[in-house]
Amino acid sequence: MTASRGILFVMTGASGVGKGTVRHAAVPELGDVHYSVSATTRPRREGEIDGVHYHFYDVATFERALAEDALLEHAEYVGDYYGTPAAAVDRALEAGRDVILEIELDGARQVKEKREDAVMLFIAPPSLAELERRLRGRGTDTEAKIQRRLERARVELRAVREFDYLIVNDRLEDAVVAFQAVIRAERLRAWRYSEAFVLALQRAT
Amino acid sequence: MTASRGILFVMTGASGVGKGTVRHAAVPELGDVHYSVSATTRPRREGEIDGVHYHFYDVATFERALAEDALLEHAEYVGDYYGTPAAAVDRALEAGRDVILEIELDGARQVKEKREDAVMLFIAPPSLAELERRLRGRGTDTEAKIQRRLERARVELRAVREFDYLIVNDRLEDAVVAFQAVIRAERLRAWRYSEAFVLALQRAT
Repeated sequence: MTASRGILFVMTGASGVGKGTVRHAAVPELGDVHYSVSATTRPRREGEIDGVHYHFYDVATFERALAEDALLEHAEYVGDYYGTPAAAVDRALEAGRDVILEIELDGARQVKEKREDAVMLFIAPPSLAELERRLRGRGTDTEAKIQRRLERARVELRAVREFDYLIVNDRLEDAVVAFQAVIRAERLRAWRYSEAFVLALQRAT
Repeated sequence: MTASRGILFVMTGASGVGKGTVRHAAVPELGDVHYSVSATTRPRREGEIDGVHYHFYDVATFERALAEDALLEHAEYVGDYYGTPAAAVDRALEAGRDVILEIELDGARQVKEKREDAVMLFIAPPSLAELERRLRGRGTDTEAKIQRRLERARVELRAVREFDYLIVNDRLEDAVVAFQAVIRAERLRAWRYSEAFVLALQRAT
């Protein structure tokens, strides 16, 4: 309505920090937002649906997508590939829909390089100790995987300054309000409004 | 808590657009925000309280403040002086409180020149015709003053692109949510967090 093109939001934060929970709680009040479903070669967890939580690719399919340059970013993490199919993202943005990507730091950097106007959000845990508690509570990872995720979280936290926004997910309600505020505020940036919209405001009648 | 210094928000928009109404409705949920009370030489309207709605200065007092460089910005508008006493703004920012200034375009530009990090919000009416209805509904201005305000509004609307954010005050509830989103999102900017805060996130315990 006000802008012809959607906004690309990139959400980064450690496994277990609650990115998905924040997003799910925030999005219903935000109107038409497209969530980009990542592709991954990691095994499907109980309850996960192909095409909803992830596109579950086998390794050969993933490597073909890479070869065809069909991914906006990709990373290998804890022995598995993760990536963002570019086509669905581009279609949504061109249709004027905002897009949310939920990706790791390496992927976020790749997106920012390709799409300078991406809005970068970092979701941090209140502390690494709290993140460890959440990872254990989830009960989906081996001890070794938990340790690797914590080490990765420590490394990612050093990159906070590369991001536009930092949201600390301490109380979920607060993090949801914060996330919604970022999306809404970015939509209000003066430069995003079309010239036609601004001219219409100046109409006398 | 997260940042040592408050954020300076500058709110600009035509008389009658509802800046004050939006701000009053938005601020109670925003925690500790300091509203900078302008000084003016215009006559006090019924119900206005000195020091609350404006600091009502006589012309001599205003010109003395100007001579002493005690104003962050000033403007003459429809025959009256308006200005922002700098001291109270600086005290609040240094104490870590966010500050909201509600000022005309000329003043907003002066503040932006002096304070590069000021966050600039433009509040627009849905149309000039709607603004005219609101000004007449307010019933405080002569016909000549209404015409001058409308002409000023037309000029100010051309400057929308100089601002960081544009909020169209069509439905009040929407404008309040939008205003709150801008304040909240700016508080979440990664660069505003203190180094101590970011380091604390990386603590293992």
